Amino acid sequence: MTPPAPAPVRQDGNTSGIAALLRPRSIVIVGASEKSRWSRTTFDNLMQSGFVGRVHLVNRRGDVVHGQQSFETCGAIGEQVDLGVVIVPAEAAVASIDDFGRAGGRAAVVLTSGFAETGAAGMELQNRLHDAAKVHGVRLLGPNSLGFVNFADNVLSFATPIRAPSRRKGTGIVSQSGATAFFLAELAYQQDIGVSYVVATGNEVDVDVSSVAEYLVDDPRTQAIALFIETVRDPASFLRAAKRALQIGKPIVVLKVGASEVTAKSAAAHTGALVGDDRVFDGLCRQFGIIRVRSIEELLATSEIVARTGALRPGGLCFISNSGGICEIAADAAQLRGIELPDVDAPTATALQGTMPGFGTPHNPLDLTGGIEPAQCEEAIRILGGQERYAAILCAWYSIPVSTYEESPRLAQLHHHLSKGLNEADVPGLLVSYTPAVVNDHAKKIIGETKAPYVACGFDRAISAFAGAFWWSKRQREAKQSGAIAQTLQRSSGERPSSERAALEYFERKGVPVVPATVAVDEAQAVAAANGYGGRVVLKIASPDIAHKSDIGGVALNLDGEQAVRSAYRRIVDAARSHAPDARIDGVIVSPMRDRGVELIVGMSRDAQWGPVLAVGLGGVWVEVLQDVSLRILPTHVGEIRNMLTELKGAKMLAGQRGIPAADLDAVAAVIARIADAMLELGPDLVAMDVNPLWVRGDHVEALDALFVWQDETEPTA
Amino acid sequence: MTPPAPAPVRQDGNTSGIAALLRPRSIVIVGASEKSRWSRTTFDNLMQSGFVGRVHLVNRRGDVVHGQQSFETCGAIGEQVDLGVVIVPAEAAVASIDDFGRAGGRAAVVLTSGFAETGAAGMELQNRLHDAAKVHGVRLLGPNSLGFVNFADNVLSFATPIRAPSRRKGTGIVSQSGATAFFLAELAYQQDIGVSYVVATGNEVDVDVSSVAEYLVDDPRTQAIALFIETVRDPASFLRAAKRALQIGKPIVVLKVGASEVTAKSAAAHTGALVGDDRVFDGLCRQFGIIRVRSIEELLATSEIVARTGALRPGGLCFISNSGGICEIAADAAQLRGIELPDVDAPTATALQGTMPGFGTPHNPLDLTGGIEPAQCEEAIRILGGQERYAAILCAWYSIPVSTYEESPRLAQLHHHLSKGLNEADVPGLLVSYTPAVVNDHAKKIIGETKAPYVACGFDRAISAFAGAFWWSKRQREAKQSGAIAQTLQRSSGERPSSERAALEYFERKGVPVVPATVAVDEAQAVAAANGYGGRVVLKIASPDIAHKSDIGGVALNLDGEQAVRSAYRRIVDAARSHAPDARIDGVIVSPMRDRGVELIVGMSRDAQWGPVLAVGLGGVWVEVLQDVSLRILPTHVGEIRNMLTELKGAKMLAGQRGIPAADLDAVAAVIARIADAMLELGPDLVAMDVNPLWVRGDHVEALDALFVWQDETEPTA
Repeated sequence: MTPPAPAPVRQDGNTSGIAALLRPRSIVIVGASEKSRWSRTTFDNLMQSGFVGRVHLVNRRGDVVHGQQSFETCGAIGEQVDLGVVIVPAEAAVASIDDFGRAGGRAAVVLTSGFAETGAAGMELQNRLHDAAKVHGVRLLGPNSLGFVNFADNVLSFATPIRAPSRRKGTGIVSQSGATAFFLAELAYQQDIGVSYVVATGNEVDVDVSSVAEYLVDDPRTQAIALFIETVRDPASFLRAAKRALQIGKPIVVLKVGASEVTAKSAAAHTGALVGDDRVFDGLCRQFGIIRVRSIEELLATSEIVARTGALRPGGLCFISNSGGICEIAADAAQLRGIELPDVDAPTATALQGTMPGFGTPHNPLDLTGGIEPAQCEEAIRILGGQERYAAILCAWYSIPVSTYEESPRLAQLHHHLSKGLNEADVPGLLVSYTPAVVNDHAKKIIGETKAPYVACGFDRAISAFAGAFWWSKRQREAKQSGAIAQTLQRSSGERPSSERAALEYFERKGVPVVPATVAVDEAQAVAAANGYGGRVVLKIASPDIAHKSDIGGVALNLDGEQAVRSAYRRIVDAARSHAPDARIDGVIVSPMRDRGVELIVGMSRDAQWGPVLAVGLGGVWVEVLQDVSLRILPTHVGEIRNMLTELKGAKMLAGQRGIPAADLDAVAAVIARIADAMLELGPDLVAMDVNPLWVRGDHVEALDALFVWQDETEPTA
Repeated sequence: MTPPAPAPVRQDGNTSGIAALLRPRSIVIVGASEKSRWSRTTFDNLMQSGFVGRVHLVNRRGDVVHGQQSFETCGAIGEQVDLGVVIVPAEAAVASIDDFGRAGGRAAVVLTSGFAETGAAGMELQNRLHDAAKVHGVRLLGPNSLGFVNFADNVLSFATPIRAPSRRKGTGIVSQSGATAFFLAELAYQQDIGVSYVVATGNEVDVDVSSVAEYLVDDPRTQAIALFIETVRDPASFLRAAKRALQIGKPIVVLKVGASEVTAKSAAAHTGALVGDDRVFDGLCRQFGIIRVRSIEELLATSEIVARTGALRPGGLCFISNSGGICEIAADAAQLRGIELPDVDAPTATALQGTMPGFGTPHNPLDLTGGIEPAQCEEAIRILGGQERYAAILCAWYSIPVSTYEESPRLAQLHHHLSKGLNEADVPGLLVSYTPAVVNDHAKKIIGETKAPYVACGFDRAISAFAGAFWWSKRQREAKQSGAIAQTLQRSSGERPSSERAALEYFERKGVPVVPATVAVDEAQAVAAANGYGGRVVLKIASPDIAHKSDIGGVALNLDGEQAVRSAYRRIVDAARSHAPDARIDGVIVSPMRDRGVELIVGMSRDAQWGPVLAVGLGGVWVEVLQDVSLRILPTHVGEIRNMLTELKGAKMLAGQRGIPAADLDAVAAVIARIADAMLELGPDLVAMDVNPLWVRGDHVEALDALFVWQDETEPTA
């Protein structure tokens, strides 16, 4: 048999060959052995799950293993096999992949550990493994992976026992930690959360979390994608997945570790991954509508709930329970998480009271009380579900019984009517347990009968999940409004403006409003310039060699009258000469004084992973003490920059404070967008940039100062 | 039979008679009936729980009910009964309490609803109920209560079916919402969390959440107190409980709703409770070491874990799991919640590597990996548990099996060795499930055999619980160091200083450093005063009728030289005359200019519920935009005021910023304490006070301005 030509790799994003990996027609366990726990478990998982394709075994002695005759090599099987599950020792892995590839294998999971995670020698072995796979066009998952599960096609190619939930579609789980993948799958089983795939990506020598995400974005059984990430190895692939997901409306939920320093250390020990700047990652999650969460439970509850609700229409949440105490906790939790709970309007209140005689004044959250009649619950949900102000209904109630002890005719009636009301509502409606619960066979039967739209995560997690759903739905709508997402454009103009003046003049040519300025080379010119502007002025030393002018006494603010200007001129020049004797001094810049406004900082720096990052913050204590900065990767668009302004902790400052008029956010965002475009045009040699401050008063926006830092540039002398 | 003399009420705090309520020797169900779900459930609960005392039934027809002969009245029983469970209709409740009291009853739970929660008529009926109880010295729980459970003594006097956890000591649950009490009890059952009492306080006409808390503080079976609160009806009792708990080292954990406006509305509909100022409550929680949480799950997990660990010694948390991914999530979660995870020191790392051949570099969090040998886990915990830098060990691991499917010899060995290591460690050590799990009979058996110190709440909740435990332990130590908690001292001195000058002079007499000041009545005096101070000065209008001087142009800052002082004097007096023509003008205050420092605001206002509240914040945007204020109820002490300074969002400003030296926090706290004492001496007619700013530069602290607002005082004219 002639091996087929190598399959093409990395066309069409990075998803080529991933179908052969995740949806194989046939499988071979390479290194099958009675002694191996992984071999036994993987084989049992595949057999018990009902996988319809062939499962071959390769054992170097050709023994009978797990009751089945094995082959000595893949070549000996005599037919092409899509997927190889490799569990041979690390030192034998390269040869096994070579054998598998020669036999026409298309994708392999390497469970074996002892590669990059162990140090330099392991890294070298891992590279050889990758090379062997590339020769044959075999896609590799791992090494050091626990494998993957494709519930929809009954492919449970996983090294630990794993149980399938009832619904084999819903969340696609991708995790860089095998154990975390298992905990997520186990939690999904316990709460019977719908799952399409569980993929543990291990050391990611080839297939990584991003490429699997790219694949799942277009997978019809996957309604939401849940990622556990330590580091993103292929930022371009990750961004392709994120942009496409936002475009077609498939939610991505991410639990990414690395916010703490200690974590950076653990991650290094764990997979050798370098943990990127968490704040940049946070910014791009906001930018591309990725829902970021902080715990395993939140990850799964959020992806399940967003998968079920889909994109919500504008409006708030209607919360219903049969306990006033729970309604109060829900109201606090919703406020904390930014969910709106629009109150019941007067006609609806009247309609509700008509359905529920003797009932008090209905509010949202709505306490239906312990004494409610089951049919009244359904009617109340029907009335509330028809209200335009609500985009979704969350009903917290007793859990679906998991034993006959918990059953009662009344509870059954309640669950029946609640479910009917929620299923028939105009907007997505979910029934959620009060606290985290399990869904066992007993509960599954009831859910099957009542068609209960039930999530057993507890209402606290459900509210945080709904916060994600509301936010993501808004991002969805914004993405549609702002049209296509901006594409990278980094042609370099060849210019290299360096001094403050050159930087500001460059910006001015690009349409960025810049404060008027005159370079004076003597006192008289300074006075003349000041008189020309009228009012108070600012003097600053003009030197391409002095970056931090204030620090050396090179700035004088708020100068009123000729005498003040003259004395400031002398003071500044003297200070510059004494603090930076070698600096070239072009003179002194004279500008009108700008105050009674808000000062922003607009910056850019290049992230090793994500490229140019735009930072927008408020000046003074906001940025210095509170690190109040919003980040986005570039390019981006005006609407997104406007979002950056509104998400600042000090956003109120822009809404008008202490006699300063409210900033025109559209005007400010437009100027920042022009600054960003102008920067990008300068090409990748511009490694960092600051416009500090960008002064704003109403719709009057001006760059007052700017600093460019170029690649390989000698540091300014001061 | 002569009824006994009424029992004394409200001696020794508010706990008198509560023992008769919660630990009755005999019980009567008043209004027992086959038709009543409550009657049936309460009777079944009492019978099945193994209550050793007599359970009588009273039914107005004297029927056989629940298979037992009932009496027509309590008097007919012929013996004194401690506890009455009243489930008669609302209109019959007063007569029933009267009958019960005449027969010598000591305490009653009134399950019946239809009282204050329904409006004015219900409130009146509730007051009559209370009056009837007072006549006989009967303590009342409710009305509109679901009852209570005393697991330790098998008194399940509760209106819904309730299941007992294995350990009948641990958390004492007190809830103003009956349903929430039930959810807490049910969650405790599912996770087999130790519970001593569950008390639903209902409308709180007599016994309230505070009085039960006071009782539980000294109850030996209660190791931690978990409260669900909508409003505190008896602040004095609440504070007694909190202070005593802090004194004797019994943790109180509180879930209090009311942070959101919507909640305030729901609560009004629910129990007619007025929700107090949430920020004041938050401040007093910090002040008295009450752990505040935000969800039902967090409430229970925190009280269980703090009950188990007790007060922790100084040091950080050692986190162990067998997954690198989990270690990373734990590190992020710990940082987010302020838990320190001190890294493993070099000798310990060497010792660990000696125990675990081939193991990488050990860190904290410690990933023991999936390949660890069970006995090595025990040894690793032994080594880490002996380190002084760790105050507790949290080990996240696979849950204890709930079925044979989940069992394996290896997992059993792991649980055995982990438990042994944790139980023998020098510091508290807990085993926690990765995600929320249940503890059923299968798991209970394993826990019994392995003595696993197991909490099934999931490691995310466990970390938030440990954050509470660490914080509470620190408050414990601080409370011991600061000695007795300050006692209220509010003798009024009879003084009523009113103008800015009078206020500052009053403070000066009381030892508060105040900026020097001279009142000038003409330009010449102002110039002389300025010359006397030297340097730049400030001029401010001096008038008892002008409170907000800046707003009318009554302040001039940063004046340098005679000309500037003269022109400012004229400007200020003119501005005052034109803006407030009727104001008395005493002249112009001349003070040295204070800048290059940090400006604090020190304020006091009287809370309707909690009395005088001290507010300390940073001036400018901090207080105006960020509401960056720390609150404590008065009186308090210097150590606590120092804590207020360090918990400000802008605390970094006090650590030295932008060339301003670090503030001497002890000096600042001492001055604020003097301000607080001086205010309290002025008595309750002083309804509000501001020292704004309190200027701080290093150890130089000065009040620059002060404003007193007196009861019934005419508002200043400007």
